[in-house]
Amino acid sequence: MQNFVYHNPTKIIFGRNTISAIGSETILWGRHALLVYGKTSSKKSGLYDQVTRALTEAGVSVTEHGGVRSNPTLDHVRSGIRKAKDHGCDVIVALGGGSVIDSAKAISAGAVVNHDVWKFFIGKKSIKDTLPLTTVLTIAATGSEMNSGMVITNEKTREKFGFGNKRLFPKVSILDPQITFTVPADYTAYGAVDAISHVLEFYMTTQDPATPVQDRLMEGLIENSMDACNRCLQDLKDYAARADLMWTATLALNGLTASGLGRVGFPMHMIEHSLSALYDIAHGAGLSIIIPGWLVWFSSQNPERVAQLGRRVFGRSIVDTQSTQQQARETHIALKKWFDSVHSPTSLSDVGISATDLPAIAENALKLAKVWRLSAYTRESIEEILRLCL
Amino acid sequence: MQNFVYHNPTKIIFGRNTISAIGSETILWGRHALLVYGKTSSKKSGLYDQVTRALTEAGVSVTEHGGVRSNPTLDHVRSGIRKAKDHGCDVIVALGGGSVIDSAKAISAGAVVNHDVWKFFIGKKSIKDTLPLTTVLTIAATGSEMNSGMVITNEKTREKFGFGNKRLFPKVSILDPQITFTVPADYTAYGAVDAISHVLEFYMTTQDPATPVQDRLMEGLIENSMDACNRCLQDLKDYAARADLMWTATLALNGLTASGLGRVGFPMHMIEHSLSALYDIAHGAGLSIIIPGWLVWFSSQNPERVAQLGRRVFGRSIVDTQSTQQQARETHIALKKWFDSVHSPTSLSDVGISATDLPAIAENALKLAKVWRLSAYTRESIEEILRLCL
Repeated sequence: MQNFVYHNPTKIIFGRNTISAIGSETILWGRHALLVYGKTSSKKSGLYDQVTRALTEAGVSVTEHGGVRSNPTLDHVRSGIRKAKDHGCDVIVALGGGSVIDSAKAISAGAVVNHDVWKFFIGKKSIKDTLPLTTVLTIAATGSEMNSGMVITNEKTREKFGFGNKRLFPKVSILDPQITFTVPADYTAYGAVDAISHVLEFYMTTQDPATPVQDRLMEGLIENSMDACNRCLQDLKDYAARADLMWTATLALNGLTASGLGRVGFPMHMIEHSLSALYDIAHGAGLSIIIPGWLVWFSSQNPERVAQLGRRVFGRSIVDTQSTQQQARETHIALKKWFDSVHSPTSLSDVGISATDLPAIAENALKLAKVWRLSAYTRESIEEILRLCL
Repeated sequence: MQNFVYHNPTKIIFGRNTISAIGSETILWGRHALLVYGKTSSKKSGLYDQVTRALTEAGVSVTEHGGVRSNPTLDHVRSGIRKAKDHGCDVIVALGGGSVIDSAKAISAGAVVNHDVWKFFIGKKSIKDTLPLTTVLTIAATGSEMNSGMVITNEKTREKFGFGNKRLFPKVSILDPQITFTVPADYTAYGAVDAISHVLEFYMTTQDPATPVQDRLMEGLIENSMDACNRCLQDLKDYAARADLMWTATLALNGLTASGLGRVGFPMHMIEHSLSALYDIAHGAGLSIIIPGWLVWFSSQNPERVAQLGRRVFGRSIVDTQSTQQQARETHIALKKWFDSVHSPTSLSDVGISATDLPAIAENALKLAKVWRLSAYTRESIEEILRLCL
């Protein structure tokens, strides 16, 4: 177990019919909210009305900033920052999934400084202060509702960059699984893939594999992501399944899983971000393409770690009598099979990317590898991994 | 999954050589600390000097309140409250295990009111404010370092009562596993039993057994408590094992395991508290006496829950082909066997209590059952459980 600091001050309000609490929780932090949200779906479903009503009834006035799209863009963040400044907003409310919450985090940091917000992402400035943020989550996936990270895409430079800062934790996040009943099957699966990927990154890149308590926590979360997702796909309105998936995705990236692991990396995300940035592929879909190939590549270095995951999560199909290499191979196959079963793509060719595209993707990924200090990853190794994903 | 609010603001600083941070962390909250600690062991080991040096170097002046003993007493808490008031302390620092931290919590609540602190425990007053609390933990057991609960014994009335309030979360807790190298084998085992008991209470009394993510989390913690304890007992100075046990015990009762379970109870603690109050038995030792008998009693009502625990934690020895009742029985036997293996007592006769003592214990426990609203527990059922513990 490596030394660590764990401090997660986000308050989670979880369950049925909890949305209206956004009013009383937000007024504790500010009187004039910038309401950040996505496309029209929350207006159609009535959720938008529910949130604005709760806010105004609590005495919070609202300035709108809709239109966040997936793989949220820097330009849209910048316009949110201008609005927040122009209208004197003193609190940010996010209504949406990871893209909306990440945009809201970037706005909360950019609204209190005079320089461009992108400087935070390229390491030229560090966050000293933010506007308080409250959120209403609409999809189980990124964990952004209870963590201090954010990812934004700079469309001009085609860079999808992210980082964390303790001032970015939301003050409060409201998680009502009922809201996710309308998330379609494909995005439900992508969300589960995202949760799995967060745990996998830590599980595989840990500096200290002698952390049994963390291992069991992570294995349980991976197992449960698959199980809960399967149940959701059988019945998109199964409350217990939606609740399980939602809480699992939150726990998968709230700092708990990484405690004691030392410095962990996000190599799979590093490569996937280039897929999203260059091809606008859904994040979860990009991950299920990269993970199997990356696991094959990683198994050549550390088969035991992959094998342990397989023995514990996929149980009876992977047994001690096989060689470690065989077990690692079976693990990668079992995970890929599960991705296939939930119709999340598992190869670059599934999304129309061919061998000739790989150098450009690797070139793009390499930039993020440098920012994230993943020094073990060269252009050659990234291309090698990408070839395993064809 | 039942609705829940999860909000744990305690900052954990975990790892080797972290003790000196108590100075810089405490000065953020106050300039004059009441330092609450236990017996002379921390003075002998040099830990006391280390903490007071860190505090004074950071500019925190210190008023001493040593002498907390296990099953901490109301009188000692009251004298701490007087000291804190007399010396104008504005922050409390706890150096010790659960007994010390619980005493410090009670003092932090009592120091800001004019009425007697016991009124909080019997529900006559509720906590509205506290002095901030920082802690240095010296034993893996109660989880008090990262939760909002406390338990104090009123020696006059022979009542060992406890409750929780969100204002009782420590601001910061420092967990250096190296400190626990000197915890002897018996108290190491009692600490592990305590951690297991916290998870078991929730696992068994959940209102909603359809919470797979919580189940896996809890099963992992129980499994790891046993595994880490075994490794500690093989080598009391095994850092990885001590670290595992310490973090496991913290996670076992920091609010996370109970999330989504609905109203949970502490029936095993309810009965054990009477053992500690009447016979001054170590809390963990009392628990390993009560748990097996309680599980037998509970299995007659809900064998499936006990059986599930057994299948998942004790693995190969408990198999699907057995009847649920058999599996539950095997689970109780396996757990009892583990308690025996770490030399934690598993019967009332082990500690010299006989059948004639049971009515008095049940009488005492019944009072706490009422305070904790465990209405399913009558004098008769408590006596029945106690008989199963003979």
